[in-house]
Amino acid sequence: MIIKQQKIAQRVKNIEVSAIRQMPILAQQYDDTVSLGQGIPAIPTPAYIREGVIELLKSDDNIGKYSLQPGLPELKQEIAKRVGQDAGRSVAADEEVIVTVGAMEGLVATIMALVEKGDEVIIFDPSYASYQEQIALAEGQVVPVPLRADDWSLDEKALRSAVTTRTKAIIVCSPSNPTGTVFSRAELAVIAEVAIKNDLIVITDETYSFLTYDQAEFTSLLTFPELKDRLVVCRSFSKEFAMTGWRVGYIYGPAYIIEQALKVQDAVVICAPTISQQAALIALTGKPQANDVDIKGVLAARRNFICQRLDQLPDLFSYTKPAGAYYILARYLKKTAWDSDKFARTLLAETGVITIPGGAFGSQSEGCIRMSFGGTEEDINEAFNRIEARNKKL
Amino acid sequence: MIIKQQKIAQRVKNIEVSAIRQMPILAQQYDDTVSLGQGIPAIPTPAYIREGVIELLKSDDNIGKYSLQPGLPELKQEIAKRVGQDAGRSVAADEEVIVTVGAMEGLVATIMALVEKGDEVIIFDPSYASYQEQIALAEGQVVPVPLRADDWSLDEKALRSAVTTRTKAIIVCSPSNPTGTVFSRAELAVIAEVAIKNDLIVITDETYSFLTYDQAEFTSLLTFPELKDRLVVCRSFSKEFAMTGWRVGYIYGPAYIIEQALKVQDAVVICAPTISQQAALIALTGKPQANDVDIKGVLAARRNFICQRLDQLPDLFSYTKPAGAYYILARYLKKTAWDSDKFARTLLAETGVITIPGGAFGSQSEGCIRMSFGGTEEDINEAFNRIEARNKKL
Repeated sequence: MIIKQQKIAQRVKNIEVSAIRQMPILAQQYDDTVSLGQGIPAIPTPAYIREGVIELLKSDDNIGKYSLQPGLPELKQEIAKRVGQDAGRSVAADEEVIVTVGAMEGLVATIMALVEKGDEVIIFDPSYASYQEQIALAEGQVVPVPLRADDWSLDEKALRSAVTTRTKAIIVCSPSNPTGTVFSRAELAVIAEVAIKNDLIVITDETYSFLTYDQAEFTSLLTFPELKDRLVVCRSFSKEFAMTGWRVGYIYGPAYIIEQALKVQDAVVICAPTISQQAALIALTGKPQANDVDIKGVLAARRNFICQRLDQLPDLFSYTKPAGAYYILARYLKKTAWDSDKFARTLLAETGVITIPGGAFGSQSEGCIRMSFGGTEEDINEAFNRIEARNKKL
Repeated sequence: MIIKQQKIAQRVKNIEVSAIRQMPILAQQYDDTVSLGQGIPAIPTPAYIREGVIELLKSDDNIGKYSLQPGLPELKQEIAKRVGQDAGRSVAADEEVIVTVGAMEGLVATIMALVEKGDEVIIFDPSYASYQEQIALAEGQVVPVPLRADDWSLDEKALRSAVTTRTKAIIVCSPSNPTGTVFSRAELAVIAEVAIKNDLIVITDETYSFLTYDQAEFTSLLTFPELKDRLVVCRSFSKEFAMTGWRVGYIYGPAYIIEQALKVQDAVVICAPTISQQAALIALTGKPQANDVDIKGVLAARRNFICQRLDQLPDLFSYTKPAGAYYILARYLKKTAWDSDKFARTLLAETGVITIPGGAFGSQSEGCIRMSFGGTEEDINEAFNRIEARNKKL
């Protein structure tokens, strides 16, 4: 007779599979669903990348074999060039770059390399749900710093007062999943100043760096040279090149952190998939074809479209128009006694529309649902038709 | 000014990138190397798999997108069928199976789900190097149980005396990397009995289950029904289908462990690469083409070949002929004062032959080097020509 609970480590008792992934699984039990859920752009990986990979599958016997553990040298060189341009300094591909299994594995390798029991890690509330789980895996303490609830901008005072002698790091995500906000240079300067003053590491998730709208401009923390020795940049090919399923990204940071993160990567996945690394290399060095979708343009149009639909439901939702990424946190104005998990599950059960409960991202986004506008315009349209019909009965 | 050592978590200070991955990186500084190092079969991924993937790259817009987090449902069904056949019982694809980023991520997800500070985990000495690092990542204590040094068989007494009240699990790898031995049913029965008597979890790495030679027969711990509630089986497509670089494998275990391992996977990689999962599905359901290599047959021939070459160097190496997998632990009989790291590095520097120092696998294999015979016959031949020439001067 096994006492099952005794077998399980405390660290996993403290965490959950992200609601971002749970909702699509839950949705399997319903017919005829339509998704505003997981952040998968409804855009195929561009043809120039797929065709380049097809050529390698025909001609390159090494396509099926392990790469060197830190990544394909040619890809690391291209990454170093790109990061170097963004940072305005030269980057050492062999010492400062690792190719990872998406930004996720880069984040977890960094966190596992830095954070241990007793360490506090500051994340903004709301922020991408997996940071909490990753910090908990490393047995660190999550310290949520509320963003301003009216526009999800930085609350400088809240940040400063959250720092303690045990604070090890701050995790930044701009453009933000789930808020869609983009930190200004002034906001980032505050974060940089706080990090230096308190001797903290800054981990920045720049998955959505390519995706800002209207006048919003992405500023990378790379452009703060004073952070050089304490900044780890995590990036992904997933969203910029519609490559979510390929699981490839990279991290760039100071050698003393990268060499430790490499140990974690080695013990966790050995290396990123070679075929995906080759696809990433083609993504960076190849040329889009005439019929490849302009991902940024398509998403900008979908953002305007979803905002129009939301604007037609002022009695049901309020929201801040996203300046970047492809998410909207919509606060629901009816059934406000329901927590967001109940709201999202009820919406799914009654309309087949998949959204993600805001509570998954932090206490500040409780009372909201996250809508992704990565789907097709038809899907967004259908989802809102159903929500609108349902709204009349609420 | 950053005090770098203060930033790094203790868990990573305790571990290293496996020598299996370090040696190929080290080898980059030399011209004209030949590898008996990392376990990459010099066999391309079979054409039926590559061609199936090419078709999907042309026709399936979802090939570039995330799969459901625990894996593609069709692939999980095929895996459940296969495991069910091996176990002689029905397997619940949704509750007992996860598709993982190689067996490695399955192992680490299992270990992180079970092991915490204060827990002891038994591994055999020698065994695959990454188990130590994975246990250390989970802050568990590695308890090495020596195998018999004459033939790397189980030392029952050593196993029994290693169990304490803090023992959480035993990790088994048969056919074994690095020893090439295959545990008999009798040896596995002892492990099963010890596990049940002491209420332990058994984690079995069956990466090489398909690969035994001569009269050796692989027995899966799946065929011990009494272990059902305490057994996690980790398998890989890497070696059986020459798919090391695709990074896809799976774990099967009781639902109460699998649901926790899923949380770790979610926080670490989200899901296995979709393209690799599709490749795995083709591997299981497709048909090899006439010109696809018979992987097992090729490796059996290479094993005989490398043994012949070793037998011609009785003054330099002694070894146990492998019954499975594609590794040989060769004990060096000259320069025995050198540790295996020095021996392997010197061999690399002087001859360009890459091997892995035995010390990476445990204290019992100190004084040995691990040779992989996954390479081509030409490579093995060239490596031994160089070793033979060098041997004359030792």
